[in-house]
Amino acid sequence: MRCMDPGLKAHRSSSEEKPGSELRARLHEVIFESDTPAGKTFDVALLGSIVLSVLAVMLESIADVKARFGQELQVAEWVFTILFTVEYVLRLLAVRKPWLYASSFYGLIDLVSVAPAYLSLAMPGAQALLVVRVLRLVRVFRVFKLTRFLGEGHSLWNALRASRPKIVVFLTTVMALVCVMGTLVYIVEGPENGYTSIPRSIYWAIVTMTTVGYGDMSPSTPLGQAIASVAMILGYGILAVPTGIVSSELAKRAGTATSSQACPSCSAEGHDEDAVFCKYCGCKL
Amino acid sequence: MRCMDPGLKAHRSSSEEKPGSELRARLHEVIFESDTPAGKTFDVALLGSIVLSVLAVMLESIADVKARFGQELQVAEWVFTILFTVEYVLRLLAVRKPWLYASSFYGLIDLVSVAPAYLSLAMPGAQALLVVRVLRLVRVFRVFKLTRFLGEGHSLWNALRASRPKIVVFLTTVMALVCVMGTLVYIVEGPENGYTSIPRSIYWAIVTMTTVGYGDMSPSTPLGQAIASVAMILGYGILAVPTGIVSSELAKRAGTATSSQACPSCSAEGHDEDAVFCKYCGCKL
Amino acid sequence: MRCMDPGLKAHRSSSEEKPGSELRARLHEVIFESDTPAGKTFDVALLGSIVLSVLAVMLESIADVKARFGQELQVAEWVFTILFTVEYVLRLLAVRKPWLYASSFYGLIDLVSVAPAYLSLAMPGAQALLVVRVLRLVRVFRVFKLTRFLGEGHSLWNALRASRPKIVVFLTTVMALVCVMGTLVYIVEGPENGYTSIPRSIYWAIVTMTTVGYGDMSPSTPLGQAIASVAMILGYGILAVPTGIVSSELAKRAGTATSSQACPSCSAEGHDEDAVFCKYCGCKL
Amino acid sequence: MRCMDPGLKAHRSSSEEKPGSELRARLHEVIFESDTPAGKTFDVALLGSIVLSVLAVMLESIADVKARFGQELQVAEWVFTILFTVEYVLRLLAVRKPWLYASSFYGLIDLVSVAPAYLSLAMPGAQALLVVRVLRLVRVFRVFKLTRFLGEGHSLWNALRASRPKIVVFLTTVMALVCVMGTLVYIVEGPENGYTSIPRSIYWAIVTMTTVGYGDMSPSTPLGQAIASVAMILGYGILAVPTGIVSSELAKRAGTATSSQACPSCSAEGHDEDAVFCKYCGCKL
Repeated sequence: MRCMDPGLKAHRSSSEEKPGSELRARLHEVIFESDTPAGKTFDVALLGSIVLSVLAVMLESIADVKARFGQELQVAEWVFTILFTVEYVLRLLAVRKPWLYASSFYGLIDLVSVAPAYLSLAMPGAQALLVVRVLRLVRVFRVFKLTRFLGEGHSLWNALRASRPKIVVFLTTVMALVCVMGTLVYIVEGPENGYTSIPRSIYWAIVTMTTVGYGDMSPSTPLGQAIASVAMILGYGILAVPTGIVSSELAKRAGTATSSQACPSCSAEGHDEDAVFCKYCGCKL
Repeated sequence: MRCMDPGLKAHRSSSEEKPGSELRARLHEVIFESDTPAGKTFDVALLGSIVLSVLAVMLESIADVKARFGQELQVAEWVFTILFTVEYVLRLLAVRKPWLYASSFYGLIDLVSVAPAYLSLAMPGAQALLVVRVLRLVRVFRVFKLTRFLGEGHSLWNALRASRPKIVVFLTTVMALVCVMGTLVYIVEGPENGYTSIPRSIYWAIVTMTTVGYGDMSPSTPLGQAIASVAMILGYGILAVPTGIVSSELAKRAGTATSSQACPSCSAEGHDEDAVFCKYCGCKL
Repeated sequence: MRCMDPGLKAHRSSSEEKPGSELRARLHEVIFESDTPAGKTFDVALLGSIVLSVLAVMLESIADVKARFGQELQVAEWVFTILFTVEYVLRLLAVRKPWLYASSFYGLIDLVSVAPAYLSLAMPGAQALLVVRVLRLVRVFRVFKLTRFLGEGHSLWNALRASRPKIVVFLTTVMALVCVMGTLVYIVEGPENGYTSIPRSIYWAIVTMTTVGYGDMSPSTPLGQAIASVAMILGYGILAVPTGIVSSELAKRAGTATSSQACPSCSAEGHDEDAVFCKYCGCKL
Repeated sequence: MRCMDPGLKAHRSSSEEKPGSELRARLHEVIFESDTPAGKTFDVALLGSIVLSVLAVMLESIADVKARFGQELQVAEWVFTILFTVEYVLRLLAVRKPWLYASSFYGLIDLVSVAPAYLSLAMPGAQALLVVRVLRLVRVFRVFKLTRFLGEGHSLWNALRASRPKIVVFLTTVMALVCVMGTLVYIVEGPENGYTSIPRSIYWAIVTMTTVGYGDMSPSTPLGQAIASVAMILGYGILAVPTGIVSSELAKRAGTATSSQACPSCSAEGHDEDAVFCKYCGCKL
């Protein structure tokens, strides 16, 4: 597992360096680790709170529920917000380099999951954004010691990252295609059939080429239907490309995943299974 | 076919241990095996009954049919239910360890396929659940001695099981994404455009990101359409991930399925299944 | 190209055996081959007729066109039908074993493409079925000497045939799932929301799980929407399975496609690229 | 990056041959290259203009915006058109063989992106076609020196081109299937259910089999729904084929992309790109 995202690496290294003060070390153990009883209890309680807080936000958005339990849900939300704020501050205190944590992937999510509550004091409605707390549930993998799952997540992530250039090229092509298709249908169908502007027609083209097909707009002239048919078949065919990219990337990875053996001389890893000599220093494995 | 699910293994082992009593052995042969004439007749009759019983339930749900043949269908259903109950009891008697059968995959399906009928005595409507009987049709593979098909099913199942951690990570990500997307559209479009609550908006997000696109809800504001476009393209791209996972898993499996035999002279492996001589040293395998 | 469909093999072998009579040989050359000038002219004329005849059928179905050119289209259709009937009879005469041709893939299509016209004499409306003539266009590949394309088609076909057991298992699972899902929604939503019967609900489940999503039926109760969400995500995930099957099959084929070298002793083909000795007879390659 | 499209190769070779006149060489450097400061400035300015001009066309199509800023947008469009025309002429002057550039991929796009403006003088409405300018954005990759991205694009393109015969066979099959399915539903549902003609029913079949499913037409008779169900499941399964083709093609390519270097001592191949020593005999590569 040489490959991990920068955020993770950051706080792992900070935990290995052992924070100076005794208290900080203890705090770190409880909050960041999950292999001591205290740490595990903390994490399970945290996950429970996250689920409950997200449910509270969702329930509040249902008119009937809000009418009956509005007061209680409001209180619950603020309790959770204060709880998560305290937790965020503690996390900042627990690491030696707070900035590294704050700018890591998890750090940003932790911040984003409390911010909307405070924001809602200034502008009402921002509250609904609290649902982003659900993103914090990614921690669930850590608690159940499912490093295996995290590893899988990273291998997926790496496969996606490795195919990024291909995906960028692909998306740019799709974007250009969608613009051209949308404009063609705008010209052919025109505002009288619901294609009131080019951006709206591009929205239609996206709905069509991703095979979503709401049906809120659909071509009604024969020529428009012919263009739509071409767009659909193109979209259908294009669907094959990202799948092919990810498949071949994962397959390649599966092929090279058979490493695990380190060179006894230079400790390099990543040798093929049939390798007899280290490919970096030439020593016998 | 070294790979089979635990349930199957369980009742195979119980059949290998040979039930003590003569009668039980005979019963077992008829009910569980399909290579004796009696066993085959029993299985074909069983499959026929299953198809007929499922058709009866389906037909009963059509108003016109029920009005005319309601009485007859009711009778037929109870006949099938009693038949399947007797069969279930006989299966329990035929194996030495009834509990192993009852808790196996097939045992559970057999139970579930009779339960709703009895349940419908207490609460009407549960009857429609009898359609789960259709699941029992999986037995069809066994009757026609299509072990090859069953083997294929297991290899598919194994591929899926091996990629389970990847799939769990993937589904969790999708769930979080769907929640965030649904909430965003809820905030932007609001109840006046049909997005009456966050759960309902999440339902919309699922409809969109899986590219189903009913069109019962669709964004009408430009900003909502922009967010929907992002959701669609994301969903479209994400579709590539599970496909890639299963493909690469099946490809890996296909790759390793042909090896296993080592050359007796040079011990090289990786020969094709039809190889008679070692492809590296030319010795007979 | 050791692999070809039985139909093709049949009429190739009958062409290799050379028909006895001189006339039949000449007829065979013109009708079945496309490498002589006469044969090529015949095939191009045939393809043109097919396209025109299909267009005629399609145009006749448009009310406006039928009102104006109904008479002419009717005549054209009968001309084409008689032409194709004559061609079919000639084909039967041109081969030594007419039955082999008649029961081959192409023979059946040729028959089916004239039958509806005669059928329409007895029952009006069958005429529209003449569109199946479009299937005859598969011959287009042969004319342009695109054997390479035909080869590709066969390799695709072989990949599909090799994965048939997996596909059967997959389809059976999907069928069972669709029945269960449809019934569940039928129970939850009920006739008052448009789910009037189980078969109709199964139709909805198919529309949903294949991610088509017309929107002619869509769940309106929260519980129904929850079940629909599960069905969608399941359908979305299941989409990965056939793709994975075909991908891995094609990849395997691509891997073993690197043969081309025949053993000098036993003339067996299909050796791996790194093979030094023939894997069938043990001779040096 | 051994693989590039003919157009690119063409103008690279013409740039290597160095244009005779000093001025032309200078012009070429500014317009075609992006590694000198002047060349980079030119390219960034160009990309900015393209984005702005496309936005102008899109905005003009929105009724509200046109009412208020119609005059200004019109002016902006003509400014951009003249600018791009000048650029096109300069490009023609900058290369030694203008015809090679004019007929290359980029040359054609450059021409197409100014033509509609002049066309709109003759026939109003053609203006909307100016959106094709968006295609010129493909140049974005070159500016940021993302040759890596261009390379990826080419590898994608090659994979698609290599699988062209398979894709042609596949599309022909889909076309034939769509015609047959559309006709079947036309016969079953008929004009009274919205299936007014065969071409329109074929449009419906495409909408269904690509899993788009607008819902503007959907079968209402039980038999029509049964046929639609078959079409959906077929379409769903067929989706697997192009994906499989592209995946296996990309996988093959990925497999062969890392080899090419042979060990000088034992002549073994298949080393990774970062290998310094032969993994079989330990000699320096």
